[in-house]
This record gives sequence, structure tokens and C-alpha cells, in this order.
Amino acid sequence: MLPLKKAIRPTTFIESAKLKDYFGLDITIATETFQHTGSFKFRAAYNLASQVPNDTIITASSGNFGQGLAYACKLLGKNAVIVMPDTSAKVKIEAIRGYGAQLDLIDINRISRNERVEQLAAEMPEAYKASAYNDEFVIEGNATLGDELSDKSFDAVLVPVGGGGLISGVIRGLAQNKSNAEVYGCEPLLANDAARSFQAGEIVANEKEPLTIADGARTISLGNLNWPIIQSSVKDFIEVSDENIANALRLYFTLANLKCEPTGAVSLGAILENRERFTGKKICLIVSGGNVDPLVYSQLLG
Amino acid sequence: MLPLKKAIRPTTFIESAKLKDYFGLDITIATETFQHTGSFKFRAAYNLASQVPNDTIITASSGNFGQGLAYACKLLGKNAVIVMPDTSAKVKIEAIRGYGAQLDLIDINRISRNERVEQLAAEMPEAYKASAYNDEFVIEGNATLGDELSDKSFDAVLVPVGGGGLISGVIRGLAQNKSNAEVYGCEPLLANDAARSFQAGEIVANEKEPLTIADGARTISLGNLNWPIIQSSVKDFIEVSDENIANALRLYFTLANLKCEPTGAVSLGAILENRERFTGKKICLIVSGGNVDPLVYSQLLG
Repeated sequence: MLPLKKAIRPTTFIESAKLKDYFGLDITIATETFQHTGSFKFRAAYNLASQVPNDTIITASSGNFGQGLAYACKLLGKNAVIVMPDTSAKVKIEAIRGYGAQLDLIDINRISRNERVEQLAAEMPEAYKASAYNDEFVIEGNATLGDELSDKSFDAVLVPVGGGGLISGVIRGLAQNKSNAEVYGCEPLLANDAARSFQAGEIVANEKEPLTIADGARTISLGNLNWPIIQSSVKDFIEVSDENIANALRLYFTLANLKCEPTGAVSLGAILENRERFTGKKICLIVSGGNVDPLVYSQLLG
Repeated sequence: MLPLKKAIRPTTFIESAKLKDYFGLDITIATETFQHTGSFKFRAAYNLASQVPNDTIITASSGNFGQGLAYACKLLGKNAVIVMPDTSAKVKIEAIRGYGAQLDLIDINRISRNERVEQLAAEMPEAYKASAYNDEFVIEGNATLGDELSDKSFDAVLVPVGGGGLISGVIRGLAQNKSNAEVYGCEPLLANDAARSFQAGEIVANEKEPLTIADGARTISLGNLNWPIIQSSVKDFIEVSDENIANALRLYFTLANLKCEPTGAVSLGAILENRERFTGKKICLIVSGGNVDPLVYSQLLG
């Protein structure tokens, strides 16, 4: 079994003169689009799947965590059970199936994903129920990205935020290497529960799954394991309009030759919202993943 | 002045499990899409601009070499004069202008690009006339990519071919590091002058600029400096239909999260043309560049 640091691909650093000149900022991209399964989620998934003793792992994520977990389990000889709505995009279903996971397709008008996970867990008491973002193994896995950033002398690291697993891991990784980089949470305005939580001093949830184009950030609330890390260590949150998420995705395409998914573009979107704040700083933009449907991407390119 | 090896960005190696599994082949991507100015051409342009004593350099390339030369001259404090048709895409004109080059926009119904270069050279006898692909400095610059591939133990390296500057450089770089990798030229079927030359044993030219979607390979013929290197050292040529170039571009998008220009996808297109040939080999696909108009790209994604 490969240890975590050998199993993951190091993040890909990109410096684009065009992007730097466009903003007049010292920008380095740290992109996880070339991580195994196309997003940072593989870090968490592999760590979790390799650390828990269980041979079967159940999750309700049909997105990047599902793919990461399916592939991690394939590498580790374990069984991944992925609960997905039967209306999920065919490409997602095929990606998960391609990694050899067991698909559990449900009619969400009859049963919720979490209810189905509970059903399956009752049927398979030996299985581990994995959260995509609220799990100590997830934070620890994502901390490897913070490790990789820590020797680059960044003044500020901008991180897309959904359930908070990535930013918590990045904070932990930076801290354990004694980095002084400020960490900013970048969140879709339409899914701004983390920003509101940060202001309120307690976890505030969205009323329902928010309809931002950044589908990786459509979480109801921050995970309670991530919250104390975020509350104590995030410098600030920046809320990003869907329009600026789309603008950022296009700028990556034209100025940096980088294909990313909308959620991955949220950190550059934060620069579009508040460029002045980062003048004179050495900043790192984390691009969390690249998996996006070709049709959606074409429409966003416009 | 930075020496060449410090001025360039190392190529970006990507291994995608999805891409490997899709083909059942041991594929490593070496992508130059994140090279400065978005293509391998910066290697050649910087080498040329830093090696020639002239302060002014003229070229007729409005594409990737023009961008690479403009940026190299900016870094080196030299003047780049780029002859371009006045009908060139606005993004190309703006990219060149953004790097601070002097634009010379011409009406190609009145004068050809080469004629205009000759006119300018007569007006500026102190200037160096740079070919995008047929120049010893170009081969030498591109050889840095061969250097970077040489310690990876590849059995076969697949290289997109237009004027032959890249493949000649790759061959030279591999040879000077005593690599035994076979080098395959990958050429659009609609612009197959290099494949025909290889078969004929002499340079065969296209009758006119070929209309392949791989716009970086729309050259009339191989450069005469590249020809002896190609003739003696290329293992074989593989001709790729425009349909398979487009298919390859889409596969990079969906399986590897890689945005590339059509010319950059020709080496994966060669796999689509002749997968069996590479079974059991450790292969490297060079992706020469990533600069493509968003509208063209959207249409290719389909």
C-alpha cells in the first residue's frame, strides 16, 4: 500500500505572465485539476480509505469525492459504495463505474441520499460511512496540500470553500510547517453560509441546497469538525458572484490555458471581487478541481 | 540576462489514470500549454533572441512563435517586429501587442508576409530575420524539451509536426542525453507534407497552405535545416485526420482536464489512428501548445 504522500500527485504550480499582468498582481496558481480523479478530493479520499480498517466504504457524494473515493478504493482493493440520484449526469455515473465502485442509484423523490446511506449502513454494519468534507481523515488528507504550499513564501492563500474540508486541511498543513500565510475563504455569494457563519461566530446553514454554478460548493453548511479551524484561523471570507465565477473560469482559459470547473475558479473570482486587497502580496490561488461537463463549459466560455 | 534553462518553464508532465485506462496504454503527457506564452515556441524564441547580437528581430509569425518572440524580446529588452495580416484575429493582435512588440499589419491582397519581411529587412539592415521553425537557434531552443524528456525512460515520444522545428529539437535533446526513445512525427493528414517527404526521401511541399484545424501545422514544407535530422532519426510518421484531432482535443478535456489547441492534440490523435502500434510501450505525448480561440474551442467540444 502506497503511503498518502506517494499516492497523491503533487499540486501543479502555474505562473502565467498574462494573468499576472492582467491583474497587476503576483499570482501563482496551485491547481488540483491534474490530481488523480481531477480534484483535490483524492487526497482526502485516499487518506480515509487507507486509514480506516473497514473494507467497505459508503458515501453519498456523486461528485468529486465520490470519484476520488472510488479510485482510492480501487487502488487499495476496497469496496466503495456510492449513493447517487438516478438522474445524475451520465458522465458522472460512468466515471464512478469506471473506477469499479458499486453504484446505488436512488429515486430522490422516494428517499434522500442520507436516508439511503443510513439504510445501507444498517445492512452493512461493517462498512464505514464517509463524509465528503466532515471527517478527521479528510482534513488530514487535505493537509498534504498545505504542506506543499508551505515552502513557497506565500503571503496569502485563497481557497474555494464548500463544506470547509479543503480550507481546514490547507490551514492545518500550513500551520504544521509554521507558515505565516494568511488564508482566505472564497465562497459563492449564492452559497455564502461559511461567510455568514464567520460573521455570526457560529455555524449558519443554508435553508436548502444553493443553486450556484459552483456545484462543488452547494453544501448546506460547514462541517462541525472544520468550523473551529476555520473560525480561529481564516483571515477573512470573500463572497463571489456567479458572474465573477464564470468570468474567472474564462480568464483561466484565455490567460493561463487552464481548464477548471466553476468551483475551482472561485478563488480567482475573489480577486475579481476585491483586487486591491491583494496588491503587493505574493498570492496563491488554489484551483480545487477541473471536472466539468463539456456542454456546461462551452456555455460558460460563451 | 537569464540563461535559457532558467528562462523557460520546465514542461508539465501529467499522468491521467482515465486516459491510460481508456486506451490501455502507458501514456505520459508532456504539455507545453503552461510554457511562457502558452506554447513550446517560447523555448526557441528566447534562445534565438538571446543568442543573436541584433537588437531588433523581425518575424512573419502571427501565431505562437510571434507571441513567444514578442515576450522573449520584452524580457531581453529587444525590439520584436511582427508582420501580421490586418485580418488577424483580434485576440492574436492583442496578445502580441500586450507583450510590447511592434505590429506591422499588412493587407495580404497587396503584399505577402514574406515580401513585407524582406521590405522591412531592407529598411532595417541591422535587424535579424527569424524563421519560426527553420533556424539553428530554434532547433537548439527546442532541444531543451528533449533534455527534459530524456531521463524518463520513454520508449516512444510522439511529436506534432508543422515545419519540423519541434521534432528536430526533441531529437537533438534526446540524442545529446543518449536516450534511445523512438521519435514519431504526428502530422495532420490534410497537411501531410512531412510524411510524404519522409517516404519520398526528399522535401515535398504542400501546394498551398493546408486547411487543417491544426493551425500550427499549416506550413508549406519542412525547414531545410530540420530535414536531415528528421530523415535520419524519425522512426515513422503517423497521419491524423482532422476528425481525430478534434476527438483527441475532446479526450484531453474529458479524461485529463487539459485544455489544448488543435495542433497540440495531434500526438494523441496519432494514438487514435494507430493504438496497437504502441501497446506495451512507455509513451510520451507532447502537447505543443494551448492557445485557441474560445469560440473555436467551444465548437470543437460540441
